[in-house]
Amino acid sequence: MPTKDIGFERWTRKLKRIEEKVERLALLSQLGQILNSTLDHKEIRRRAIEAATQLMKAEAGSLLLVDEGKRQLYFEVALSDREEDIKMIPLRFGEGIAGCVAQNGKPLIVNSPKKDRRFFKGVDERTDFKTRNIICVPVKVKEKIIGVLEAINKQERGGFNKEDLSLFVSLADQVAIALDNSRLYQELEEMFFQTTDSLADAIEKRDPYTGGHTQRVTQYSLAIAKYFQLKPLEKKWLKITSVLHDIGKVGIEDQILKKPERLTSKEFEMIKRHCDIGVEIVEHVRQLRESIPGVKYHHEQLDGKGYPSGLKGDEIPVLAKIVAVADTFDAMTTDRPYRRAMDKQAAIKELERCSGTQFDKKVVEAFIQAYQKGEI
Amino acid sequence: MPTKDIGFERWTRKLKRIEEKVERLALLSQLGQILNSTLDHKEIRRRAIEAATQLMKAEAGSLLLVDEGKRQLYFEVALSDREEDIKMIPLRFGEGIAGCVAQNGKPLIVNSPKKDRRFFKGVDERTDFKTRNIICVPVKVKEKIIGVLEAINKQERGGFNKEDLSLFVSLADQVAIALDNSRLYQELEEMFFQTTDSLADAIEKRDPYTGGHTQRVTQYSLAIAKYFQLKPLEKKWLKITSVLHDIGKVGIEDQILKKPERLTSKEFEMIKRHCDIGVEIVEHVRQLRESIPGVKYHHEQLDGKGYPSGLKGDEIPVLAKIVAVADTFDAMTTDRPYRRAMDKQAAIKELERCSGTQFDKKVVEAFIQAYQKGEI
Repeated sequence: MPTKDIGFERWTRKLKRIEEKVERLALLSQLGQILNSTLDHKEIRRRAIEAATQLMKAEAGSLLLVDEGKRQLYFEVALSDREEDIKMIPLRFGEGIAGCVAQNGKPLIVNSPKKDRRFFKGVDERTDFKTRNIICVPVKVKEKIIGVLEAINKQERGGFNKEDLSLFVSLADQVAIALDNSRLYQELEEMFFQTTDSLADAIEKRDPYTGGHTQRVTQYSLAIAKYFQLKPLEKKWLKITSVLHDIGKVGIEDQILKKPERLTSKEFEMIKRHCDIGVEIVEHVRQLRESIPGVKYHHEQLDGKGYPSGLKGDEIPVLAKIVAVADTFDAMTTDRPYRRAMDKQAAIKELERCSGTQFDKKVVEAFIQAYQKGEI
Repeated sequence: MPTKDIGFERWTRKLKRIEEKVERLALLSQLGQILNSTLDHKEIRRRAIEAATQLMKAEAGSLLLVDEGKRQLYFEVALSDREEDIKMIPLRFGEGIAGCVAQNGKPLIVNSPKKDRRFFKGVDERTDFKTRNIICVPVKVKEKIIGVLEAINKQERGGFNKEDLSLFVSLADQVAIALDNSRLYQELEEMFFQTTDSLADAIEKRDPYTGGHTQRVTQYSLAIAKYFQLKPLEKKWLKITSVLHDIGKVGIEDQILKKPERLTSKEFEMIKRHCDIGVEIVEHVRQLRESIPGVKYHHEQLDGKGYPSGLKGDEIPVLAKIVAVADTFDAMTTDRPYRRAMDKQAAIKELERCSGTQFDKKVVEAFIQAYQKGEI
């Protein structure tokens, strides 16, 4: 408790300091919300850097993540413009301020880096950045160090202090939680895609001539999407649709699916059923409903000569149009029992020839762009 | 800025108030971390109640979630011991303090509930709880109201005030973020299970006599797990293993898989391959590695007479032992072309007869317990 003889000046200073603390704690809480309100790993990393800079009132912030295999740290996002320069500089455990913090897990303030043996001059030298002072704390998930959060050059005079440190440790804890939730989400997403892909692959393996077909169609579809201005959510659905487009083949009999000769027209009618069988499978899963149009209509043609419904032009959903091109290109460029694979150049010519009648012109254009950039 | 003539008493009060604010902001930040450090929806709900009670220094807290279809709120977790009583009381939009907040999205403090028309007396009447004052804020995700957070009966005199409200709104925002992340995670998880299940179902549909087999085996396995003391993570793997146990059948030819007569011993050797084919599919997915033992060994027997490896006793992984019982029970209780389904009672007798030779005794015991509780 204060005593009565504390002078007015000291009171005012004390009050000002504590009011500042209130502001910074409110900011910390707000930054924690911002960090946790996305599950996108890259976005969290970006927000963590911004938060570090803002909360520490610093010139710059950086986040270094641990590469456990190599026992080194790498800069994730860093000093804005100089990002590219700095990304290439890995720091070994025990090397530099950040390397020390990553190694022993203890926060560190260095207000005279030039005098500190631990300071790693490499970054300043390569980036023209002058480090005056630095605050650096470990980012820990359940006692495991996954990275290091730094703020560099406090804007106010006097360097970083204990109060900064306590706030910065709390921020690093929030960053750790957000990164860990995002990691869990992304692992689950990867598990979904890989499992579905693996099952789709197994389903197509019954047909020995299409091994790897699903993966290639997915790769081609996503390459098209890059030059086609799809929204992120549409890209996600394109990926899922590509993986699932042929799963209806599970319902086609061996003797037709594996027949080495050309199919009779009756047999071809049976094969056509894979679109509808695919829909039957997919529509059981509420969360897959957006993939239904692509699974159903990836054999439709602009001129109405496709199947199963003979849709024309814009009646065909865009994801189906994209999968159609990817699917056909892969069919042309892989061996069939009754013909050899075309080379890619010839297959591109064929796509161009059928552009506007069988295939959507813009989709073919995007495909060719991706091909010319070496992405197909 | 303060002026010199402010008396000592007022200074001290002001300082005390602001120091308390620092404490509460630090607590808010800590509670935000606690809320976000799990993706388990139920656990977040529990922590939200605790946080509300603690931050508001209240006697009790509660979280009500919106049921959009019915336009009503239901208590998620509430006043500890009285939880069960209160869970049964739904509140319509516009009904009671919480119902008003859910309807118009504005926070509310009511320090004399008895005098307030909006106060809903049902809860007090049914629970013997005396509400003296109440603070209630909406829980919003992107402007959408998903629930209402309440704290009841401030421990200090004077009721809830503006400062409480500002802190409580921040807490509700943290709760909203944590609940939304958890929802996204759980939706993805559901998508994974439903898709895999749907594909497994399609794969088994090639065999018309086993429709719904995958779902039933999964249901039986999880019923066994309930009486078998599995850890939560083991339960998760049991579920995945059950869904995937027969996917290797995708590699078995139609003429064997769909043969209506009894298989010859040569054909049976072909069928046995589904365990190894299943492993080939599953091992492509890094995140599914824990399911390999169950997929591979779900046809092993304690006495070593099973396949594919003739493992004995404890050599057989526990998840494989569980799936084996679930799988066999379903095989016995469904029709086959060459025999009718057994009734459940007879199938249970058969499991008991083979307990200790073919099946693990403890697994059979757990199965019977689940059966007697009506869960199978």
